[in-house]
Amino acid sequence: MSTPISNQYVHDLDRQHVFHSWSTQGALNPLVIAGGEGCTLWDYDGKRYLDFSSQLVNTNIGHQHPKVIAAIQEQAGSLVTIAPATANLMRGEAAKRILARAPAGFSKVFFTNAGADANENAMRMARLYTGRDKILSAYRSYHGSTGAAIVATGDPRRVPNEYARGHVHFFNPYLYRTEFNAANEEEECARALQHLRRVIECEGPGAIAAILLESIPGTAGILVPPKGYMQGVRKLADEFGILLICDEVMAGFGRTGAWLALEHFGVVPDLIVFAKGVNSGYVPAGGVMISQPICEHFDNHFFPGGLTYSGHPLAMAAIVATLDAMSEEGMVENARDIGAQVLGPGLKKLAERYPMIGEARGAGLFWALEFVSDVQKKTPMPAAVMQEMKAALTARGLLSFVVENRIHVVPPCIVSAAQVNEALAIFDEVFALFAPRFA
Amino acid sequence: MSTPISNQYVHDLDRQHVFHSWSTQGALNPLVIAGGEGCTLWDYDGKRYLDFSSQLVNTNIGHQHPKVIAAIQEQAGSLVTIAPATANLMRGEAAKRILARAPAGFSKVFFTNAGADANENAMRMARLYTGRDKILSAYRSYHGSTGAAIVATGDPRRVPNEYARGHVHFFNPYLYRTEFNAANEEEECARALQHLRRVIECEGPGAIAAILLESIPGTAGILVPPKGYMQGVRKLADEFGILLICDEVMAGFGRTGAWLALEHFGVVPDLIVFAKGVNSGYVPAGGVMISQPICEHFDNHFFPGGLTYSGHPLAMAAIVATLDAMSEEGMVENARDIGAQVLGPGLKKLAERYPMIGEARGAGLFWALEFVSDVQKKTPMPAAVMQEMKAALTARGLLSFVVENRIHVVPPCIVSAAQVNEALAIFDEVFALFAPRFA
Repeated sequence: MSTPISNQYVHDLDRQHVFHSWSTQGALNPLVIAGGEGCTLWDYDGKRYLDFSSQLVNTNIGHQHPKVIAAIQEQAGSLVTIAPATANLMRGEAAKRILARAPAGFSKVFFTNAGADANENAMRMARLYTGRDKILSAYRSYHGSTGAAIVATGDPRRVPNEYARGHVHFFNPYLYRTEFNAANEEEECARALQHLRRVIECEGPGAIAAILLESIPGTAGILVPPKGYMQGVRKLADEFGILLICDEVMAGFGRTGAWLALEHFGVVPDLIVFAKGVNSGYVPAGGVMISQPICEHFDNHFFPGGLTYSGHPLAMAAIVATLDAMSEEGMVENARDIGAQVLGPGLKKLAERYPMIGEARGAGLFWALEFVSDVQKKTPMPAAVMQEMKAALTARGLLSFVVENRIHVVPPCIVSAAQVNEALAIFDEVFALFAPRFA
Repeated sequence: MSTPISNQYVHDLDRQHVFHSWSTQGALNPLVIAGGEGCTLWDYDGKRYLDFSSQLVNTNIGHQHPKVIAAIQEQAGSLVTIAPATANLMRGEAAKRILARAPAGFSKVFFTNAGADANENAMRMARLYTGRDKILSAYRSYHGSTGAAIVATGDPRRVPNEYARGHVHFFNPYLYRTEFNAANEEEECARALQHLRRVIECEGPGAIAAILLESIPGTAGILVPPKGYMQGVRKLADEFGILLICDEVMAGFGRTGAWLALEHFGVVPDLIVFAKGVNSGYVPAGGVMISQPICEHFDNHFFPGGLTYSGHPLAMAAIVATLDAMSEEGMVENARDIGAQVLGPGLKKLAERYPMIGEARGAGLFWALEFVSDVQKKTPMPAAVMQEMKAALTARGLLSFVVENRIHVVPPCIVSAAQVNEALAIFDEVFALFAPRFA
C-alpha cells in the first residue's frame, strides 16, 4: 500500500470484495471518502463534502474529534480489549457517565455492540422481568436487523430465548398521513392512544411484556409525537403492568437538542436503548440503561444473554471522551440553539417556498423534509427523483441522508450557523431545479 | 481520574454501574485487569496472570500486539469511522486479505459487528438465495444471542426477515457421550450422518435452506467431528440442494493450527461465518465470506439486511494488521506445532494421570478437558467443583476458561512451549489437589 491511493483504486477494491448492507449489489456506485474533520469529509482528489447526514445519524460530535481520537489511541496503547466478565475501568466510567444523563431511577448499563443487539437485550429483560412474551411496537419504526441467531443456537441458552414470535405492531401518530382521520395534533394524539388501548385489550394485557417505541421515530421519518402521546403511552403501560422501552439509538445523545429525546415528553421509561451518538460510532457500541426494579430482579435471577464484546474497552474509552467533550463544549445546547434558530426556521421556509415539500418537521438537529409529487394527494415523490436530488446535492458538496421520499437533515451537533446556511443555500438551489416538474 | 486507580476502585465501580452477560448479577465478583502483553495480563497491584482463555477465545495474537495497536492508532488518526454505504480503503483491504485465506470460490465479504449478527446474515442470505425457510443446526452449538430485533421492527424491512421460526435441531457427533450408541468414531460418524439424513427427510428437504454447523463446535465442548463427518454433511447438503454454512467464529483464524478449521476436513461450504480471531477482538468485528453463486444472486436481488457499523474502518484496520502479523510471524504454524508437540500431548498425559478427566480432545490450541465425578457413569463434574478448580488456577496465576464440566484450554496462538509447560505444571498441581475427592 505504498503506491498513492486513488478514488478509483478504493472504489474498485470495494466493488471487487465488499458486500454492502440493504442493497442490490450489482447497482452500487459507492462514494469514496479518504478523511474528515468536524462537519467536513473529503476524498482522495481533495473534493470536500459538508456532512449533513452524520453518516448514519451517528457522528454527533463530527468527524475526528481530537479528544476522542486521543482517548481511543491511549486506550489502544494500554488495554485494547478484555472479556466482559472482568471489571474494567473504562467500562465502569462509561456506565457512570451514561447514567448521569439518564432520568433518576436508572442504575446499571448493559453494553452491546450496537443498537440492534441493545434492543434484543432490552426485549429479553422485559420478557424475563414480566414473565410475559408479547412486545408491542410501532409499524413506523426501526429497531435493528438481527432476529434468529439465538433460536438457531442449540445449547440450553436457546431455551429462554425462543422469542421471535409474539411481536405485535400498532400504528403510531403521524398527522401528515394520519391513520385515524384526525384533523389536528390533539385528535391524532387521542385517537392513536385509543387505538393502542384497543390493541392492548385485544392482544391481552396480561400477555404483553413491553411497549417498545423510538422516543422520536427516526428512519421512519422523524415523527415527533404530538404533545401528550408519550405520556399517554406511559399511562397505558402503567394501567396494564406493561414495561415501556424507549429506543434512543438515533434520537439520543444530543441529536434533538437534549441528552435524550424522551426529555421533551416528560416520561420515564423502564428501559432505555442507546447506541450511535453515545460515542458517535467512533468504535461500535450500544447498550441498555436499566431502571432499579429491573436491576434488582436480575440480582437474583440469571440473565440469559450476552456477547463477547460487551463493554469493549476501546468503545468505552470513546464513550467517556465523547460524553465529556459534549458536556465541556456545549454540543447539546448547540444542537438545541442552532436547530431552533437556524436549521428549523430555514427548513420551514424552504417548505413554504416549494410545494413539493409536503412537510418539514423535527427537533434540534433531527429534521425531515417530506417530498410529494402531488400536494393534494400527498403522493410520495418517486424514488428515482429522490436519487436524482441526492446526486445533485452530492455534486454540490452536500452529503444528504435520503430515506424513501424524504431528506433527513441531520448534521453533527457541532454544526455552525454558517454551515447550516451554506447547506440551506445548496438545498434551495437544487430544489429550484426540481420544483418546476412538480408544480 | 487523576487519583491512582486501585483494584478495589475498579471492582466497586463495576459492581455499582455495570450489568454483566450470562450472569446472576448479585453473585458477581469480577476479576480486575489493568493491562497486558502477549500471553500475560496484570491487575493494578501488579499481580500477573498467564492467559490460557484468550479471554473469550478471541485474542489469538495475544494482548497488545504492537503492530496491530499501531494500525488502530493510525486509522483512528486518519478516519475513525465512516458509513457502510461508502467505499473505504481499509474495508476493501480487509476483505481482500480474508478472502485470500478462504477456499477457492469465495468472492465477497459482508462485515458485521461480531459473530451473532454474522450468523444472522448468513442465515438471511441462505434463506433468500434458496427461497426456503428452515435452518438445521446442532443441539451442541452456539451461534450468538440475537433473535428478535428485526421482527420487532415495523417498517417494511421486517417483512422479508420474519424468520425466527423454522429452526430445527439435530444431534451432532460426540463419541464420548454418543447419542447413537456408537462404539467407535466410524460408527459415531455413520450413525450421526444417517440421523441427519432422517431429520432432513422428515423436515422436508425442499423446505430446508441451510445446515449451519461450527466446523469444530467450540463452547459446546470442542467437539472435533470424526473423520468423514463434515464431508458426509456436505454430500447430504448437495444431494438435497441445501446450503452448508460453516461457523468459524471461535475455531477460525489460527485457533486450530489452520487458517480455518474446515481445512482439516476438506470441505468447502457455501458461506463461512467469522469474528473473534479475525482481528483478535481488538475492535468488534465479524462477517460472512460469500461464495460466488450467492454473490451473483445478490447482484440483481436486493439484500434486506445491514447495520450501521458494517465494515467499520477501525475494525478493518485491525483485521488488516492482524492477518498480516499472523502471516509474517507464523502464528498459525506456531499454533499447529505447539498444539501437536506440547499442549496436546501434555493434556493427554494429564488425562491419563487423573481419571476425573474423562476426555482430553482438541486440535491446535483448541482443547477441552472434560471432568467427571464418576468415570464409569461419566457423571459431569458438579459446577461448584469446577468453580473451585477455576479459583485455584486463578490464584496460581493461570486464567482458565471453564464451561460446564470442562476446562477449555485455549491460549493465544503465539504461546511458547515454555508457557504451555508452565500452565501444564499449574494444572497438574491443582488437579492433584482435587483428584483424591473423585478417585
